[in-house]
Amino acid sequence: MTDLDIARAARLAPLTDVAASMGIAPHLLEPYGEHVAKIKLSALDELADRPKARYVVVSAITPTPLGEGKTTTTVGLGQGMRLIGKRATVAIRQPSMGPTFGIKGGAAGGGHSQVVPMETLNLHLTGDFHAVTAAHNMLSAILDNHLYHGNDAGIDPYSITWRRVLDVNDRVLRNVIVGLGSRSDGIPRQTGFDITAASEVMAIFALARSLPELRERLGRIVVGYTRDSKPVTAEDIGGAGAMAVIMREALKPNLLQTLENTPVLVHAGPFGNIAHGNSSVIADLIGIRGGDFLITEAGFGADMGAERFFNIKCRASGLVPDAAVVVATVRALKVHSGNHAIVAGRPLPPALLAENPQEVAAGGANLRKQIENIRLHGVAPVVAINAFPQDHPSEHAVIARIAEEMGARWAVCTNFADGGAGATELAEAVAEAAETPTAFRFLYPDSAPLREKIETIARRVYGADGVDYAPAAARQLDVYERNGFGTLPVCIAKTHLSISSDPSLRGAPTGWRLPVREARASVGAGFIYLICGDMRTMPGLGAHPAAHRIDIDAEGNIVNLA
Amino acid sequence: MTDLDIARAARLAPLTDVAASMGIAPHLLEPYGEHVAKIKLSALDELADRPKARYVVVSAITPTPLGEGKTTTTVGLGQGMRLIGKRATVAIRQPSMGPTFGIKGGAAGGGHSQVVPMETLNLHLTGDFHAVTAAHNMLSAILDNHLYHGNDAGIDPYSITWRRVLDVNDRVLRNVIVGLGSRSDGIPRQTGFDITAASEVMAIFALARSLPELRERLGRIVVGYTRDSKPVTAEDIGGAGAMAVIMREALKPNLLQTLENTPVLVHAGPFGNIAHGNSSVIADLIGIRGGDFLITEAGFGADMGAERFFNIKCRASGLVPDAAVVVATVRALKVHSGNHAIVAGRPLPPALLAENPQEVAAGGANLRKQIENIRLHGVAPVVAINAFPQDHPSEHAVIARIAEEMGARWAVCTNFADGGAGATELAEAVAEAAETPTAFRFLYPDSAPLREKIETIARRVYGADGVDYAPAAARQLDVYERNGFGTLPVCIAKTHLSISSDPSLRGAPTGWRLPVREARASVGAGFIYLICGDMRTMPGLGAHPAAHRIDIDAEGNIVNLA
Repeated sequence: MTDLDIARAARLAPLTDVAASMGIAPHLLEPYGEHVAKIKLSALDELADRPKARYVVVSAITPTPLGEGKTTTTVGLGQGMRLIGKRATVAIRQPSMGPTFGIKGGAAGGGHSQVVPMETLNLHLTGDFHAVTAAHNMLSAILDNHLYHGNDAGIDPYSITWRRVLDVNDRVLRNVIVGLGSRSDGIPRQTGFDITAASEVMAIFALARSLPELRERLGRIVVGYTRDSKPVTAEDIGGAGAMAVIMREALKPNLLQTLENTPVLVHAGPFGNIAHGNSSVIADLIGIRGGDFLITEAGFGADMGAERFFNIKCRASGLVPDAAVVVATVRALKVHSGNHAIVAGRPLPPALLAENPQEVAAGGANLRKQIENIRLHGVAPVVAINAFPQDHPSEHAVIARIAEEMGARWAVCTNFADGGAGATELAEAVAEAAETPTAFRFLYPDSAPLREKIETIARRVYGADGVDYAPAAARQLDVYERNGFGTLPVCIAKTHLSISSDPSLRGAPTGWRLPVREARASVGAGFIYLICGDMRTMPGLGAHPAAHRIDIDAEGNIVNLA
Repeated sequence: MTDLDIARAARLAPLTDVAASMGIAPHLLEPYGEHVAKIKLSALDELADRPKARYVVVSAITPTPLGEGKTTTTVGLGQGMRLIGKRATVAIRQPSMGPTFGIKGGAAGGGHSQVVPMETLNLHLTGDFHAVTAAHNMLSAILDNHLYHGNDAGIDPYSITWRRVLDVNDRVLRNVIVGLGSRSDGIPRQTGFDITAASEVMAIFALARSLPELRERLGRIVVGYTRDSKPVTAEDIGGAGAMAVIMREALKPNLLQTLENTPVLVHAGPFGNIAHGNSSVIADLIGIRGGDFLITEAGFGADMGAERFFNIKCRASGLVPDAAVVVATVRALKVHSGNHAIVAGRPLPPALLAENPQEVAAGGANLRKQIENIRLHGVAPVVAINAFPQDHPSEHAVIARIAEEMGARWAVCTNFADGGAGATELAEAVAEAAETPTAFRFLYPDSAPLREKIETIARRVYGADGVDYAPAAARQLDVYERNGFGTLPVCIAKTHLSISSDPSLRGAPTGWRLPVREARASVGAGFIYLICGDMRTMPGLGAHPAAHRIDIDAEGNIVNLA
């Protein structure tokens, strides 16, 4: 059975029952079709007196290009919690529609640990991504219109950082010249499109705690600079109000359910490299009042998503995590031994599937470092061994031993095959870990200069010997400090395929320095991001994309949506 | 009170009650928020045995740039019908979001004849336009990806007609070069963006009678030609299935209500010049089973929207109209006298407001011709005099006299100020007109060659002396005939501000010839369109667009959405 077959065979509970299981009454729901609802923001006030759930973030070791089943584990853990008698809510990002039609397929978990309805989740959902696209491009139009009608703000056209976005994999949009034609067709200049998930509007919407805060953050977006390097904001050019109006409904979190009827909040989907890669703060502020556990997922490995979860998302939300899951797989640790390479879209190398606990041990440095990266923030780590049919018990034993050596709880998870029943041990381990009082701390204070923040992450989280700044990046950081952006946290945009900035380095690389090529500001979202390597913000399609196969059948059902 | 104030003060009926009033049971509804629902397509079969309602199209004289209140009259007529004891359903297009933030403002009717909730109607609604944007741009990405991965179909890049779309007023996107950068960033070429309403996907979705038909029509889209002028379709490059999947939910019509709780189907919004400018066939196929009257609106004047309603939309739907309303205003007829000009965004010239029945009579030729344009199709015309506070009874009397001379029923409407109570006379007149057996006929048969179809419309509807083809247009028409597209109906894209192709000519111009500059094919939608004049398919923003003022207030309410 494919994931889509399993999803379609699911017995969905009435959404009012799902909502009730997290203490949300029907008057707080706005239905969108039969199996999805938005939760009204009045829930924030109405639930404020409820006790807070334990807050658990699901992260991972450094993944292979296939991913290591983090969403599947997150969903399975939510399902497993219910089986051990705990009320759990799951909170995840909305998948980007573009990659659904590329190579990646959908992102709803997998097997018997999925969010449903999966078609809705992977296509449009309630239109939040479309709202981000519309709000972002509205500001782009207002900006070019500002240049066209006299440029009163004195924007230097070559300083413009605000591009356009679309939720599609379309490489030819990366670099475009707009404004060609006649005088009435605007002022020509070079710019480009990113995928919608990479929009600063997406990051803002993921970090705002209320509609007024969303409005303020949108106003703070810096679209470019004057000729004397003063920032020009969305507020300055009269774009923030319209954007807030376009985003007003999107700010309400979406409620779906797992195959086993666990409530799932699906909300926002910021990029995991140039943005913080975490689902929305506002969903978590509602979900934290929903029972015993709120389980959320952070993008990529613990050096990436979890670090930003702690230092960017928790800083914005004020919520304090009680435990962190680190998902590990045999195959990824074997890759971290340096003996194998996995290429997306190609079959796994057969040698990778042979029983080889030594190889798992050889890759263990990555797991050790990622556990340490959780500990750095004072949070209790739990290792989830996401079991695959080709794994061998001797290989799981190696992972378990590493976890124990590091003082971390661990459990083998078979929730892909078995649903929540395959994650009850993980649920018990997480529940125990979360019982111990949290010693959560940020990695750096707001007041540290930007370079100090960058170096702290580079050395302590990534294990680098130091940081090298390209001249342009150094100049840019000086401009940011001068403009008062120095108190913002930082988001380091590097490869997710290595703890280092070199995607070919496996394990826990040492003896390297982080090269910061460029610095950019997401002032509305509230972080400075540093480009360290080739960061693709608009994917392309392959020669045989999923789009060629996805279709409707004679009964109108969707086929080949992976 | 502004329109938004009136809309917000409305007492909305539960949507299940609204649906019940058109015979739609709750199991056929998919709620989207509290006051909007999609109607499941199973309604088509389930309601098939119900008697058909009388089918009324609302058209107008040639409008000024301000519009003459066609939507307001359509909504008011729906409200008025109920007051005379008739069960009526209204069907209109979804407004385009781009212009809402430009100069135009929202499009939900006005005063006490509005569709509510107006904020939802004018912003996103249920995301159908976003789906069109996504489906259209998915095909664009697949097309450029096809060129990038070897161009197996042998597409001549210079022949590509498929552009990209966004629902925003953004002039710099009209002409762009894509594919700049390095080898991995695609193949550079010049192209551009249209507004989403101008997408062929929008026209297709407005004309399809079922999901399988939508899928087929999408497959027939011609994206460009091979070097030996053979058409290359969306099916050929593997894009149609993905597009259908993206459009699957959008095909379900949206149910809203008027201020007086009349059911309103809001569905699709194709452009009124390069496309047929009518709301969806599928909404009408459902609405026609909803009671005594289905009232729908056609874009621009009777020479434009109504002609396409008859010859394109009714041809696709198989539905037969029973009556047509021609909305006339004193101010527009005064403009048709040739003595005044109205500029959008500027105050009306004071001379236009003085009592002047002679001037109304002088502009009457336009009304006469537009009544005749209805009659040409064998349909009974009814003149709706949309009364403004500045009008004088002597001026209304002139309009009434012209209607009577032409053998048309007429009524003065005050439904902007008075709601349905201001449209009961119109409702009575329409009910009487619709009682007479219809003699509906198409203006031309499918089998007529394209040039004959064009000349028939030009001479009989527009009053032209003939048609002149630019060499490129003539060549293109030959290609279409050769490729088997000659049996399609035609859609003439000319100015909507004159019955002629010259926007400065008022009244009912004669002694002119229609210049066809260019011919294009919307093969999926099923019509050939002819460019006669400057057709803008991507609007721009003015120096002071509505976007600068639209905002949320401290309570999170939307302000300044006109």
